[in-house]
Amino acid sequence: MLAEKKIEVELVEERYWEQDPDFMRRNPAGKVPVLRMDGRAMSESQAICEYLEETHPTPALMPGSPAERYEARRIVFWFDDKFHHEVTSKLLYERVNKKITGQGYPESRNVKSGAQKIKFHLDYMGWLLDQRRWLAGDVMTLADFTAAAHLSCLDYISDVDWNRNANVKDWYAKIKSRPAFRGLLADQVSGFPPPPHYADLDF
Amino acid sequence: MLAEKKIEVELVEERYWEQDPDFMRRNPAGKVPVLRMDGRAMSESQAICEYLEETHPTPALMPGSPAERYEARRIVFWFDDKFHHEVTSKLLYERVNKKITGQGYPESRNVKSGAQKIKFHLDYMGWLLDQRRWLAGDVMTLADFTAAAHLSCLDYISDVDWNRNANVKDWYAKIKSRPAFRGLLADQVSGFPPPPHYADLDF
Repeated sequence: MLAEKKIEVELVEERYWEQDPDFMRRNPAGKVPVLRMDGRAMSESQAICEYLEETHPTPALMPGSPAERYEARRIVFWFDDKFHHEVTSKLLYERVNKKITGQGYPESRNVKSGAQKIKFHLDYMGWLLDQRRWLAGDVMTLADFTAAAHLSCLDYISDVDWNRNANVKDWYAKIKSRPAFRGLLADQVSGFPPPPHYADLDF
Repeated sequence: MLAEKKIEVELVEERYWEQDPDFMRRNPAGKVPVLRMDGRAMSESQAICEYLEETHPTPALMPGSPAERYEARRIVFWFDDKFHHEVTSKLLYERVNKKITGQGYPESRNVKSGAQKIKFHLDYMGWLLDQRRWLAGDVMTLADFTAAAHLSCLDYISDVDWNRNANVKDWYAKIKSRPAFRGLLADQVSGFPPPPHYADLDF
């Protein structure tokens, strides 16, 4: 979102799981991201995004009418709550976060459940995209970036079956080709090299 | 929020955990609340609240400036994400939801963890209220109602120690005395009578 709005930012790695007192002062919730901007350390990604949308409205990443904005926010929460709980935490957190934070091995029951549930979500996205150009309507919104953030992380560990739904694959190809998304695709987790298709626009 | 904005609504009980196909059509995420309004079934409580604030702006439940709105949303997410995960799901869901939905007995490890964590949250609220009249600033916002929703549910099962922090008790007394909150306090879960102090303005 920062890149789409051409807001330059310096990235700083935070080992948030160590709950360092300095970090906890920046965000007492102990989570990333934290954005330092306009003299304040801000946390909670969607609260930050709404703030950026209000203070840097161009280009718009939220639609104009209350009904369309409702739908964009509904889908943002769909991914950050339901998808996160059912899929991201079951696959990414088990396979990657646990290792990085020294919490041991993936729980195979969780990995199986996440691999099963992602199918339902890809089908739901495919059904939405049958009726719309983007996830929340005919314009690209924060909902698309929220979904793409989750899917990109899962694609990094080859947990997305792009052949399941052509609409979803086309949608992700559009997201992936945006200049703002390219920088993200170059980012790597040390010790976890991404598969060759991950940053490839032709996947 | 509906009552504060004087929007009349008919309440319908949903046995959402039964995942009835009719209910799943209203909200494919399978969660409550669902609000039927303006010809649409809307879901995701915060997306609904933002919609209500945009379509029924008086009385305002979000402050005027982007920075204050950011802070209100940050606190909304604090409660619906962190507090929900650390406290509400560990106490209310273990003691009440499990029984209602036929999922057995409370896990004592979870109950202990929730009872421990709520202390940190009450202290954090007390610290915020040392500097402000309401949780997100000097006006009452959606953040106060979000926090009060969680605390009221926990107070129903006597899991809130109101003597821990005088600021928090004073804040909850102000919320509790609002006409919009009175109706909620009359609502009961069958099989779980609330303690006498629950609906009492002098608790």
